[in-house]
Parts: sequence; structure tokens; C-alpha cells
Amino acid sequence: MSQEKPLILIANDDSIYSKGIRVLVEIMSEIGEVVVVAPDTHQSGMGHAITLGSPLRVSKTSDFGSNILSYKCSGTPADCVHIALTGLLDYKPDLVVSGINNGANMGDDTIYSGTVGAAMEAYLMGIPAIAFSQVERGWTYIEDAAEKAKQLVTTLMQDSKINDAPWLVNVNIPNRPLSQMGEVKLTRLGRRHPAQSYITQESPRGETMYWIGAAGPALDDADGTDFHATATGHVSITPLHVDLTDHANLGYWAQTAARLNVPTGAGAP
Amino acid sequence: MSQEKPLILIANDDSIYSKGIRVLVEIMSEIGEVVVVAPDTHQSGMGHAITLGSPLRVSKTSDFGSNILSYKCSGTPADCVHIALTGLLDYKPDLVVSGINNGANMGDDTIYSGTVGAAMEAYLMGIPAIAFSQVERGWTYIEDAAEKAKQLVTTLMQDSKINDAPWLVNVNIPNRPLSQMGEVKLTRLGRRHPAQSYITQESPRGETMYWIGAAGPALDDADGTDFHATATGHVSITPLHVDLTDHANLGYWAQTAARLNVPTGAGAP
Repeated sequence: MSQEKPLILIANDDSIYSKGIRVLVEIMSEIGEVVVVAPDTHQSGMGHAITLGSPLRVSKTSDFGSNILSYKCSGTPADCVHIALTGLLDYKPDLVVSGINNGANMGDDTIYSGTVGAAMEAYLMGIPAIAFSQVERGWTYIEDAAEKAKQLVTTLMQDSKINDAPWLVNVNIPNRPLSQMGEVKLTRLGRRHPAQSYITQESPRGETMYWIGAAGPALDDADGTDFHATATGHVSITPLHVDLTDHANLGYWAQTAARLNVPTGAGAP
Repeated sequence: MSQEKPLILIANDDSIYSKGIRVLVEIMSEIGEVVVVAPDTHQSGMGHAITLGSPLRVSKTSDFGSNILSYKCSGTPADCVHIALTGLLDYKPDLVVSGINNGANMGDDTIYSGTVGAAMEAYLMGIPAIAFSQVERGWTYIEDAAEKAKQLVTTLMQDSKINDAPWLVNVNIPNRPLSQMGEVKLTRLGRRHPAQSYITQESPRGETMYWIGAAGPALDDADGTDFHATATGHVSITPLHVDLTDHANLGYWAQTAARLNVPTGAGAP
């Protein structure tokens, strides 16, 4: 770290106006030098999307008071972190914290999560990152979730071994008073069944409009998963990586790849 | 498969009007029953984003002639596949094919790729899926790339072992005549250095606008990566998974998780 207090960049996907980022900024300011770059509109479900086809608006805000440097950005959560780390900030943060999201980001839902997308962008840029989500929507016990986030960040930043290389963790916090929160459980991501059917509505102009339907029920919520940990009142922490290569099955695919090179007819090499 | 010819759903991220999807639809129609659900606007960089905050427009098109059922959708690539598989189609496709993308989707760029996002959505829904990209933008030798895609799909669909469970592969095809294309190489995803700085422009209204900058140079393009395979004229095929859990480091994180449960002061459980 370049100063006594760690430099913490904060982003989210519920927008800079959400309660979750407000409490996170307040509590992270107690332990670090905070800067905020967050979307100016709701960006839930944007995953790791990045804006390539149009330019973005980025402007300073005073939404967090005069002591905290903050920017709102017209892009996605990953855009916010990307812009922050490719020139907007003239220093490299020690940590990027994303959230606190209004609702869980667990299992394969993480792949759609803008909260996780923002943290993952930091990790790809070589900076340790944490995505924080509160399991139930509606902000009950959000101050307690923020206090838990502070405890976790404090401990993680003190762990010099962790900070030798960038890392990425996904944290889901149950909506409980701190005193009734279970311990922190190291988890793997669970799995869901495929999503439920889309829902149609008729627009005021007579068009049929399609809404993405509800997520599917759990397929794997066994002991050891994030679903299981939070369902039993614990805080779930899952280390993530970004290598989508299916290393475990490369051996199997080697046989298939060999078959792909057997000539099948005219035009084959 | 429920019929003699496989049922193939085609999506992409360059929009239903792109040359890449046109040649793909044509050539896949030679080997399967094709249905198209693709975005009505350019969706590059959208990754696995899904639209939760607003409804989508979905309408039939005749862009591929009267023999091919096709729909355009106002959402992301993942939205298109999601809508198709959660009610728009009254059957389950045997395969989902995404592309052919105008430009490479390799290394950690895959996490931003709408082409890969569409295929990944199918895989999450339990259907085998392939993302096809041509390495250089501009469509040179796109007919040859389509022919190579046909060869790969034909062989993969014949491989009953593969089709016992859903799978997801990312294919990048060099812009070469088929006769000069190297063989198919099984690869892992390479890595890139962090992206270059953003670029600012002044809008006609005097605002500073921010464009996401260029991708970084390769960090890992060693033999065995997708970058290396395509650079040497080969077709790259990388099996992907969607489990973002960093399983390899769970043991290490177990020590950290234990430290996270040591009380650090007032309010700790």
C-alpha cells in the first residue's frame, strides 16, 4: 500500500443512488481512502458487459459529501471500474469493493451479476476485489451487513500473503443483526436449474412484450455451497477465478479434437 | 435428437443483419433444421448480460427466407437464447450455435463476448453450444470459415459420447481459404495484459466523452493457447465451463476463512 490507509475504489450495479453503496462508502471510509465510480442508472443483470459501441459520460458528483471523490458513469459496472483503472484515477487502488447489492449473487447467477462483473474487472486489471451482496432484497439489516463487510475487508487487507497477488471473492451476507449472523463459511458456487418461462405483457400500444422470467430453483445447494451457507444464516465467501477453460475435461476433448482433423470429404485439409 | 436432422438454434452478437450470421444460417441449413433468434442491434461486448429491468420486443422476420423460422429480439445475445429456450420454441434444440463473430473472441476477452455469452446461456440451460468467431474483422474468407464450422458441427453432432451431457466450446477460425487452414488445435484460453487507457473525445455539445480503450497485448500466448493456435494459422477450439469457483485455491482460502472468524473487536460474533 502506498499510504497508511488503503486506497479503496467502490463500484456497484444498483447505481450510485442506491442505499447499498451509500452504507458501503460510509463504512469503508472508516478504514480506507475511498473513491467511488458507479453507474448513474440501474445495471442489474449486466454481468461483465462492457460498452464498445458508444462513448460514456463520466462526471464528478457530490453525492457522498465533499470529502469523498466520486464519479457517476453512464456505462455498466465493468465500464465504471475499467474507466477508473485506465486513466480516471492517477493511482492504483489497493482494493476494489463492489456492492452492497440489493439481493443475493450466488451460484451460476454470478455470471449475470453486475456486482460481480465490476469486481471481476478489477481482478482482470490486477487488483484484489470483493463483491458484496445482501441475500434478501429490501435492505433490512443493511447497516449490519456493512459492519460485516468492514470486518472482512479489515482482515483481508491485513493478510499480506493474500495481497501478494490479485484475488477475487464473492461474499453474500444474510439479512440479520450482526449478533445473529453465523460465522463466515468458505464455499463453492451452487448451481440452479434452468430459469422459468418468460412472461409476456401487452404494452399500452398493443405490442406483446417479453420479460425474462424468474431464476430456477436450486439444483446444487448442498453443504459447501453458497446457497447452503446463507440459508443457514452464515456469511458465504467464495473465491472466484476468471479462467473459463474447462481444464478438467481437456483430456477428454483431446480425443474429440483428433476426430475433428479426420478428413470428412471435399474441402477438408 | 428428436428428428433425423438436428435442430439447431442460431444466435450471435453482431445482430441479425450481420454477414456472419447469414453465412452461418445458410450452411447450418444444409445439415440441420435451423431457427434463428438474434439481436436487432449490435451487441458486441455485452458478455453474459441479461435484461432484467425492462421488457423485450421479439418479432418474426423473413430475413432468411420463408423456409427458415427467425426472430429478432431487442435484447442481448444471452436474452435471445434465454427467450428462445424458455418458451419461444416449443421444442428443445439439439445444439445452439453462436456467430460467426466479426473478430476474435480469445483469452480473457471471452468474458466480455456476447457471442460466447449466447452460447454459454444455452449451456446453462442444458444444451450443447458452440461460439464461432473469425479471427480478423472484415469477413475475408467468411465462406471458408462457414465451411469449417459445418465440418466441426457435423463431427461434433456425430459424437454421441459428447452429446450425453451439455458442453460448450469456443472456436476461433483464421481468415484463410479452407485449403490453407491449419488443423484444429485443442487449446486453453490465453491471457491479456490489462487494457490500454480510455480515449476521450469532445462531443458536438462540448461534453467530454469516454471511450473504452484498446485491449492489452497478450500476456500468455504460449503454445497451447488459443492466441498461439490462430496466430499459426490453426483453428482453435477451447472447451469452456461456467464454474467461476476458484477450486484450485480453496485449500489456501480455508486458512484465510478461519482468520475471518477470529473476533476483531466489538460487534464481532
